[in-house]
Amino acid sequence: MSTLTPQSKDFSAWYNEVVIAAGLADYSDVKGCMIIKPYGYALWENIQKIMDEKIKELGVENVYLPLFIPESYLKKEAEHVKGFAPEVVWVTEAGDKKLEEKLAIRPTSETVMYRTFAKWISSYRDLPLKVNQWCNVVRWEMRTRLFLRTTEFLWQEGHTLHATKEEADEMVEAALTMYQKFVNDYLAVDVLKGIKSESEKFAGASYTKSIEGIMKDGKALQMGTSHSLGQNFAKTFDIKFLDKNGSEQTPWPTSWGISTRLIGGLIMAHGDDKGLILPPAIAPIQIVIIPIWKNEQEKEKIKKYAERIIKELKKFKIKIDWDETKSPGWKFNEYELKGVPLRLEVGPKDEIEQKVILVRRDNGGKTAIDFNELKNKSKAVLKKIQKNLLKINKEFIRNSERKFNNYNDYKKEIGESNFLALIHWCGSIKCEEQIKNDTKATIRIYAKNKRPGKCLVCSQKTNDLVYLAKAY
Amino acid sequence: MSTLTPQSKDFSAWYNEVVIAAGLADYSDVKGCMIIKPYGYALWENIQKIMDEKIKELGVENVYLPLFIPESYLKKEAEHVKGFAPEVVWVTEAGDKKLEEKLAIRPTSETVMYRTFAKWISSYRDLPLKVNQWCNVVRWEMRTRLFLRTTEFLWQEGHTLHATKEEADEMVEAALTMYQKFVNDYLAVDVLKGIKSESEKFAGASYTKSIEGIMKDGKALQMGTSHSLGQNFAKTFDIKFLDKNGSEQTPWPTSWGISTRLIGGLIMAHGDDKGLILPPAIAPIQIVIIPIWKNEQEKEKIKKYAERIIKELKKFKIKIDWDETKSPGWKFNEYELKGVPLRLEVGPKDEIEQKVILVRRDNGGKTAIDFNELKNKSKAVLKKIQKNLLKINKEFIRNSERKFNNYNDYKKEIGESNFLALIHWCGSIKCEEQIKNDTKATIRIYAKNKRPGKCLVCSQKTNDLVYLAKAY
Repeated sequence: MSTLTPQSKDFSAWYNEVVIAAGLADYSDVKGCMIIKPYGYALWENIQKIMDEKIKELGVENVYLPLFIPESYLKKEAEHVKGFAPEVVWVTEAGDKKLEEKLAIRPTSETVMYRTFAKWISSYRDLPLKVNQWCNVVRWEMRTRLFLRTTEFLWQEGHTLHATKEEADEMVEAALTMYQKFVNDYLAVDVLKGIKSESEKFAGASYTKSIEGIMKDGKALQMGTSHSLGQNFAKTFDIKFLDKNGSEQTPWPTSWGISTRLIGGLIMAHGDDKGLILPPAIAPIQIVIIPIWKNEQEKEKIKKYAERIIKELKKFKIKIDWDETKSPGWKFNEYELKGVPLRLEVGPKDEIEQKVILVRRDNGGKTAIDFNELKNKSKAVLKKIQKNLLKINKEFIRNSERKFNNYNDYKKEIGESNFLALIHWCGSIKCEEQIKNDTKATIRIYAKNKRPGKCLVCSQKTNDLVYLAKAY
Repeated sequence: MSTLTPQSKDFSAWYNEVVIAAGLADYSDVKGCMIIKPYGYALWENIQKIMDEKIKELGVENVYLPLFIPESYLKKEAEHVKGFAPEVVWVTEAGDKKLEEKLAIRPTSETVMYRTFAKWISSYRDLPLKVNQWCNVVRWEMRTRLFLRTTEFLWQEGHTLHATKEEADEMVEAALTMYQKFVNDYLAVDVLKGIKSESEKFAGASYTKSIEGIMKDGKALQMGTSHSLGQNFAKTFDIKFLDKNGSEQTPWPTSWGISTRLIGGLIMAHGDDKGLILPPAIAPIQIVIIPIWKNEQEKEKIKKYAERIIKELKKFKIKIDWDETKSPGWKFNEYELKGVPLRLEVGPKDEIEQKVILVRRDNGGKTAIDFNELKNKSKAVLKKIQKNLLKINKEFIRNSERKFNNYNDYKKEIGESNFLALIHWCGSIKCEEQIKNDTKATIRIYAKNKRPGKCLVCSQKTNDLVYLAKAY
């Protein structure tokens, strides 16, 4: 049984250890590429399944476009290529031949999407066009961490085209709201939602909105983004349509995505020194049964009892661990490490009394319940755990938020710990850069509310409030 | 309305046209890479969903391994690299830097899988290990065709390790049987199933089994493969386990896969001069409703009637086409092109009589049915279509099979048309090559039955029978 570094001692070490120890993922020999193991991939499958339904509810259809993007496409949109060039991985050879034109492995698919859309769109009747793809993307990162920042990652990228700016703005918001609701309802993670500063927006976008979670170490994690791309891309790729009056117009594109990074957020928002804590709505195993016996006679009885229990709980994602080479105590630790929301302990005494010991992963709460209550109680407790995790996370975000009027105070405090700060900002890139250089914290998003005040750095009058945090 | 080249005139042209006209896929600007459009991707999603369940029923868990394979891995297994080298695409640059070691884009993942398994396996208790991944793979093909042979394609690759050869053999057969059953039950395509010749097996495998469909032009299409990899790969990648007696053993790996190529098979096994014919079990749209009206008053009535129809048929994948810019006749053609199994026509007269006109795509059969019968009849007819398509395909394969004892006769006949030939073969690569060079037909698989006879080419005595066909 491995013991994890306590979060309070070294959160980063804890994270790396828990990802590997819980069997979620591992490093590969290729720099920054990860191996997603069955337990980690099951989390991604659950995310995909739920999200895919929600995406389709927005009237979006799935497609698949090529992994390769010709260099000439990528270079078409100047801002875009500037943002992505340092991270692009290039194919230059096939078989034993040099390629005539280098091919980028997609870091994102805007360029190849728009090149395609130009052929699909001619009239206002073809709009809105809404597609999505689930795929792998590659960005050559210098510093990588499992799930959070990997050279190759899995994601979903939605791409839409609209006849008007208003419709595009609505789509940007609808996609982000979908992400927020998913993260709240399934991952039990609360997020801040808002617009990014100019310097933090997607390369080539008109504006970027994001949802930001606060991890248990007080750092922010961007958990989903949604971009309005203005008309630049559409013009660059010559996408046009005839409106109802027969005059030529340029459509308004949006794009939005979530990735395997969400798994990193899930881990860091809920986990504790014992390991993962997975919300029941997303957990690959919702209930684990640990049978306890001392001799064959007891084992036979427990087996029969366990069969009845499994039948009773067949609606849940359930696992029973009969491994004879491991003790019950070892198994308790193992499934706590794996973050299974609910543990049922079943020993000879329980069998005689027709009871089951039920242990919650979120708060360690332990109760003996009658077999007859098993189904209803399990359902109710899983629901409670889901709710409780979100509640704890909400309180955590609320408690981590602090307000500052004095830059020196802020610098001092943020030098000593991580938290979320709400401050006034004049909007200048100079002040933004200064905060970043002085404190390593960055502007995460604009706050929804405005209020007269002075920029924390330069004291210029402004109504704009922004959230600052160190971020992953 | 586009008119397709008749199959009898030019099957290949028909295929290319129907893929594009039905909105399944299109060419991209990158050589041999395709754009899978929503209607085509919906087919792939249906295939994935069903197949994923069946794979999991075999006790296989999903994982995700890196897209990139270091050159040194790929070179470890000599046969393997020899087979794949001409098709491998290489990444040599990231950002503006040359990589120290070239990275192959996976053409298949055996090497990276085995490298990983070596870390996962130590005892017999870790076996069998059964994983699968859904991903993209890249093989730089000189001659490409949408779905059938593309530079990048989507597939599923299962990889397992077993303690004994017997278990591995059973797994190879179980995976292939799963594919056969899927292709029969869902794609309504009958297949031959058997072992490949030495020269046609997977590069590095001990043996390869495949399922082969016969397309409507008489050519064969390999629709799924399953490989026993002997122990070479395992030895090369140093995978070992301690057996129950504590002695070190080498495990037995298998791998097996199906790809987006299945969509090509689906098209060519059933389609006709009007377009696709999709089996109901896999069709993205099972029933299309074409409302017919002449004026607003009629339209209102039809709308109300259609709402009742849709409610009645909500269990099916259903679409109603209200497009006012297209005539009912245009729509009939359009959904025939798209291969929708069942068309319902609903006009003012039908509304008055509370009837619906039901038209089958497979045989054009047209019947008027009462609204009250709608649900049951639709279900029954869809079932009949599914059954009928498989029956037709089975008869087609049976009729396309011919036996030959004289090589000159065979050469002459196969020079004039495409069919499936059952012949005796001595097993020599010389005779196999000669058939290939003389006739373009290849040995698809060994027949299940053996019978004394003489090799079609060299007349040597043999019991082995093989199937020959020109193939995609």
